[in-house]
Amino acid sequence: MPAISIKGQNMPESPIRKLVPFAEAAKKSGKKVYHLNIGQPDIPAPEVVTEVFKNSEIKHIEYSHSAGNESYRKGLTEYYAKYDISLGVEDILITTGGSEALIFALQSCLNPGDEIIIPEPFYANYNGFAVTAGIKVKPILSTIDNGFALPPVEEFEKLITNKTKAILICNPGNPTGYLYSQQEIEALKAIVKKHDLYLFADEVYREFCYDGATPFSTLKLEGVEDNVVVVDSVSKRYSMCGARIGAVVTRNKQLMQTILKFAQARLSPPSLGQIAGEAALKTPQSYFDNVVTEYTQRRKTLVDGLNKIDGVVCPNPGGAFYTVAKFPVKNAEHFCQWMLSEFEFEGATVMMAPASGFYATPNQGLDEVRIAYVLEVEALKHAVKCIEEGLKAYPNN
Amino acid sequence: MPAISIKGQNMPESPIRKLVPFAEAAKKSGKKVYHLNIGQPDIPAPEVVTEVFKNSEIKHIEYSHSAGNESYRKGLTEYYAKYDISLGVEDILITTGGSEALIFALQSCLNPGDEIIIPEPFYANYNGFAVTAGIKVKPILSTIDNGFALPPVEEFEKLITNKTKAILICNPGNPTGYLYSQQEIEALKAIVKKHDLYLFADEVYREFCYDGATPFSTLKLEGVEDNVVVVDSVSKRYSMCGARIGAVVTRNKQLMQTILKFAQARLSPPSLGQIAGEAALKTPQSYFDNVVTEYTQRRKTLVDGLNKIDGVVCPNPGGAFYTVAKFPVKNAEHFCQWMLSEFEFEGATVMMAPASGFYATPNQGLDEVRIAYVLEVEALKHAVKCIEEGLKAYPNN
Repeated sequence: MPAISIKGQNMPESPIRKLVPFAEAAKKSGKKVYHLNIGQPDIPAPEVVTEVFKNSEIKHIEYSHSAGNESYRKGLTEYYAKYDISLGVEDILITTGGSEALIFALQSCLNPGDEIIIPEPFYANYNGFAVTAGIKVKPILSTIDNGFALPPVEEFEKLITNKTKAILICNPGNPTGYLYSQQEIEALKAIVKKHDLYLFADEVYREFCYDGATPFSTLKLEGVEDNVVVVDSVSKRYSMCGARIGAVVTRNKQLMQTILKFAQARLSPPSLGQIAGEAALKTPQSYFDNVVTEYTQRRKTLVDGLNKIDGVVCPNPGGAFYTVAKFPVKNAEHFCQWMLSEFEFEGATVMMAPASGFYATPNQGLDEVRIAYVLEVEALKHAVKCIEEGLKAYPNN
Repeated sequence: MPAISIKGQNMPESPIRKLVPFAEAAKKSGKKVYHLNIGQPDIPAPEVVTEVFKNSEIKHIEYSHSAGNESYRKGLTEYYAKYDISLGVEDILITTGGSEALIFALQSCLNPGDEIIIPEPFYANYNGFAVTAGIKVKPILSTIDNGFALPPVEEFEKLITNKTKAILICNPGNPTGYLYSQQEIEALKAIVKKHDLYLFADEVYREFCYDGATPFSTLKLEGVEDNVVVVDSVSKRYSMCGARIGAVVTRNKQLMQTILKFAQARLSPPSLGQIAGEAALKTPQSYFDNVVTEYTQRRKTLVDGLNKIDGVVCPNPGGAFYTVAKFPVKNAEHFCQWMLSEFEFEGATVMMAPASGFYATPNQGLDEVRIAYVLEVEALKHAVKCIEEGLKAYPNN
């Protein structure tokens, strides 16, 4: 049998999926499982999206321009303008989800063996994309003690070598929910400017900011227009993860021309998803207001509920719909597995993602879990109760 | 400004796109341009596809399983069974077009620096995927003199080194339209078996075979189940290029597990496209019969018409909807450009793809063009007439 490639052998498995067989077994045994482990929101997509296919005649499902339909990209410039971000159509390239946007950016900017600095814990699939591109992730530790704020500039400086080509952030953050302040983003600007690095910013949770906060996009930074590359996606914004429509956004013309060559090789982003994406641009503000109100309630339910449990520490995240909480256990992965296979409370249990899989440094976050608050308040209340009872009953504290 | 990666610099531009500015200028000047340069068929998608969105309530556009919806994959096993190919659901992984299928296969099987043998002329985007994966294409010359038949086994043997990990074919072929016989596929089997190589087969034009011929899939080869990897796509089969739905098919379990890890990192193939793909499985045989009848007429119009022109040699391809023809010119790229910018006949001209861009070996195919017969017979007749008059008028023969 011919061999598997080294990259193939090194591709990590998602930390979220490890527990799937235990969840399936739990369901088979009749338990209700509350899924707080994945970021697939239960909110319906806006009506303008669900209506568009019913009311349109689709005769030809053709390739679009490799950079995406121009009408859609033009619509996106207006979307960004609402955030005071001024862009031209040529600064936006439509991708197959945010995943492809990041892959294109990594492949276009970094050589195999180059290094990228990422504050940890971070979205675990960044590891997979790094393996694909043959690059090395240099994690920089952020900590639950300050809610996962940006590590001090000096800590970044310590990691920078002549192989360092980029810094990658996720803002608001998955898995932490942390929302970087303008000061923190400006601090990153100073570093990338000083060392002439790329600043990749995954801003797909832009709409999910709470307590009246507005996210500060890296696209608003002045003087580093050639350094900033934003990864965007409609997946969470409009609850249409399956559309697989994202975008890579940069004012760096040479980089955009390079990315376009990668885009041309794969011909076109999905046409049906682009129809949905363009329709979604007409989503009324009330949709987002309702979503933010809903998630604010959910967040309060989860965070307050968790912090009332003995020994649990849960920051109050400013954005996205995740939090990383500290549990009074030695091994959160074992606890999460035990919750699925050994425990139930009133016929139910909870599936969570052990946070250690979101750290690149071994043995970090062993007592932490990532929780997505993507269920309705009543379900969340019951889920929190399950966690409380589970922690009481867990024998391996 | 931070630097562009070496891969980014090396990514080739599509040979089809080079002439686009000239075509745009021609159209602006009022000329009608017959597009024989790209493989975007004008045939409408089957009604079962165009109806599916109108009649369905899409409330949530969710991630699917990373390998694609199980119901769709199950449907595909029945599709393959009609071709006497016996597969399980676990042998099929849904991808974002055939492009992603090939990228996943290359990344999973070859290490950077490894070599893949591809008969040339070949689909030009293979070059882009090779750059992405950091691998080296070793072309093996096929020739218009025998209609681009498979080169003799000895020629393959000459190219095989300890870096050679795979052979890639496209059958029926883009750009040549050549349909490999069972004997030719069996000859490849002998080579991959002897040297324990992967055999990647791009079989996306399976439905487009003429003169009663049936394609012989590499999936029917016995004794090399772990070597064979098929790249498939719905793009051409159902005229839905923009759905971006393909598949990677292999019975090699270890390889499929590896590919799944790449698939998990990008979460899911497009959900809307999968709805279209699954609906398309109900396409009646009459649709394909009509398509084959239509393309048979178009092929005859093109091939007979071209061969009547002084100095033109055009093989009669057994499949797909392309042909590579030899023109009585020194530099077909210059001729194609001249046709757009300097020539018109009865207010029209023709856009073709210079074939040299489909060869990896420099200076091959300089007097050849790839022509896609994706227009109706009457339009094709006029296009052939334009080519004839163009060749008469062209000053640089």
